[in-house]
Amino acid sequence: MNRKAIGIDLGGTAIKAGLISESDGLLEEVSVPTNADEGPQYVLDRIADLISGYSTRFPDVVGVGLGSPGAINWARTTVSSPPNFPGWESIHVGDALASRLDRPLLTLVENDANVAALGSAHYGVGHRFDSFIMVTLGTGVGGAIIYQNKIFRGATGAAGEIGHMTIDYEGPFARSGVAGAIEAYLGQRFLSRHARYRLINKKDSLMHQMAEDDLQGITPKMLFEAAELGDSGAREVLAWAGHKLGCVLGSAVNLLDIRKVVVGGGLSAAGHYILDEARATLNHYVTPALQAGLELVQETRGNEVGMLGAGHLVFQHVDENGISPE
Amino acid sequence: MNRKAIGIDLGGTAIKAGLISESDGLLEEVSVPTNADEGPQYVLDRIADLISGYSTRFPDVVGVGLGSPGAINWARTTVSSPPNFPGWESIHVGDALASRLDRPLLTLVENDANVAALGSAHYGVGHRFDSFIMVTLGTGVGGAIIYQNKIFRGATGAAGEIGHMTIDYEGPFARSGVAGAIEAYLGQRFLSRHARYRLINKKDSLMHQMAEDDLQGITPKMLFEAAELGDSGAREVLAWAGHKLGCVLGSAVNLLDIRKVVVGGGLSAAGHYILDEARATLNHYVTPALQAGLELVQETRGNEVGMLGAGHLVFQHVDENGISPE
Repeated sequence: MNRKAIGIDLGGTAIKAGLISESDGLLEEVSVPTNADEGPQYVLDRIADLISGYSTRFPDVVGVGLGSPGAINWARTTVSSPPNFPGWESIHVGDALASRLDRPLLTLVENDANVAALGSAHYGVGHRFDSFIMVTLGTGVGGAIIYQNKIFRGATGAAGEIGHMTIDYEGPFARSGVAGAIEAYLGQRFLSRHARYRLINKKDSLMHQMAEDDLQGITPKMLFEAAELGDSGAREVLAWAGHKLGCVLGSAVNLLDIRKVVVGGGLSAAGHYILDEARATLNHYVTPALQAGLELVQETRGNEVGMLGAGHLVFQHVDENGISPE
Repeated sequence: MNRKAIGIDLGGTAIKAGLISESDGLLEEVSVPTNADEGPQYVLDRIADLISGYSTRFPDVVGVGLGSPGAINWARTTVSSPPNFPGWESIHVGDALASRLDRPLLTLVENDANVAALGSAHYGVGHRFDSFIMVTLGTGVGGAIIYQNKIFRGATGAAGEIGHMTIDYEGPFARSGVAGAIEAYLGQRFLSRHARYRLINKKDSLMHQMAEDDLQGITPKMLFEAAELGDSGAREVLAWAGHKLGCVLGSAVNLLDIRKVVVGGGLSAAGHYILDEARATLNHYVTPALQAGLELVQETRGNEVGMLGAGHLVFQHVDENGISPE
């Protein structure tokens, strides 16, 4: 049996919808702008359009999985307060879509970091591991835990907030108000600021040209490009970030005894400039008894893992619970 | 059905064996010195003696659970390299006991911190929670995770090493070589040293009398006693420890989305001098989205939870797998 599901990745800038084959992964995908400022009804209309586009052509789809920012309830039915989605309080996504679709489809929602990890577990580099920690480096620092091939959800469904773990209890504050949270180092805004101050007196760094002498305009992308071109300043910044990443992952490994780490998200494109240092550091922050088998690898399927994991959520749910959501 | 099991707590100084009733908890207990220096055969003889003492009188016991230091394999059959047990490499405890007992008994081993948490979950203050983080403050800092009323074991059975999580990546080294690991603050040796230096110029602290003017002799017990007598120096030290504890627990809550914490072990006798500060700090190190329902409580059953959890392990195993170990 080769089931199909629709996997949707609801992001701040785009809504991506993929047709996911259980055995073959992503068969096709389509993307539209989110325009979250238009409000939740607009966004839900767009999601329904994308679903209809597939479900009319593929009437045998098993259901819809949606990866979303915001808080997800335990039953995987509602999305609450996704950041940067004005007017979106708490919405039962299945109900909201049912009224927009010709026929009802099993609909499950899950946190975006969690579906990305599930996608990696079944279709990405995480396929090699039964259990792993996923960290997603993008605008913020996301995280998820895959345990025995499933999402470890914690007590309420919000587990995996690696971005808020502290590596220095007297360190800089992250947006969450947690001192020394890893996001205060690796979040895009924080990393860019660090680069600016670190390079301000390093006039020979390519970054000055790239940012057109306005270091406030530094982006992580510029850092990778400069690093690729051999710029030592950019490489120092990325290695600094990798060091911090290794510290927080050490804590996570000690707590979970899950010794495999998958790094995804836009910043992971910086590949070995960050990850080599993270790998070296990780060993110093894991107790010796847990060091055997430590691995830190890069997700190479990019953002596709979000749609893939959202689709897989449907297959997993049906296998465990039958066709209805709880 | 009110089943009975034998729960054993193998410690560095004493072996404690309890007769555990599934519904009523600890019915009776007995303790002998460990004398680990005599070697593993001696220790195993003592354990067998304790088991025989119960199993001849209560032939209906379901089996034996043993909480032990050291590494436990996934099948819960062997104990490897328990610290401070010379000559003990890797021992299959069930086999070692079978040759010493008149009749074979189902025997399961589990990490000592894990059984303490399981004991708390079913017979102690943890009974209130389906899932909680347990931290044990003793000579070192132990930890365990109870998830949905069972031990969360991680990938190899060693999850819960809270003592090795860092709160300051450039902090003092713990014995594990991890910089800023919480054990480097709250481990008994480290806490005593901190107290010594903190109080050396505070001549009015009662600690000077208690330690007979030799602050190198400070013990945590002295700190509690002085705190109880109103000594501000001792209270400062314990609050300092509580602050550090709150920091690391914040990281653990963020990662696990398990918002209940049970603190056990000898140092938890210091009760509110440590825990009030830990509780206040915890809020600052947990991201706002996960703060609802945070609770940090003290285990009041003391070290009994080790025997209780070891016994409960047997009931749980039989319910899930029948009478044989894997």
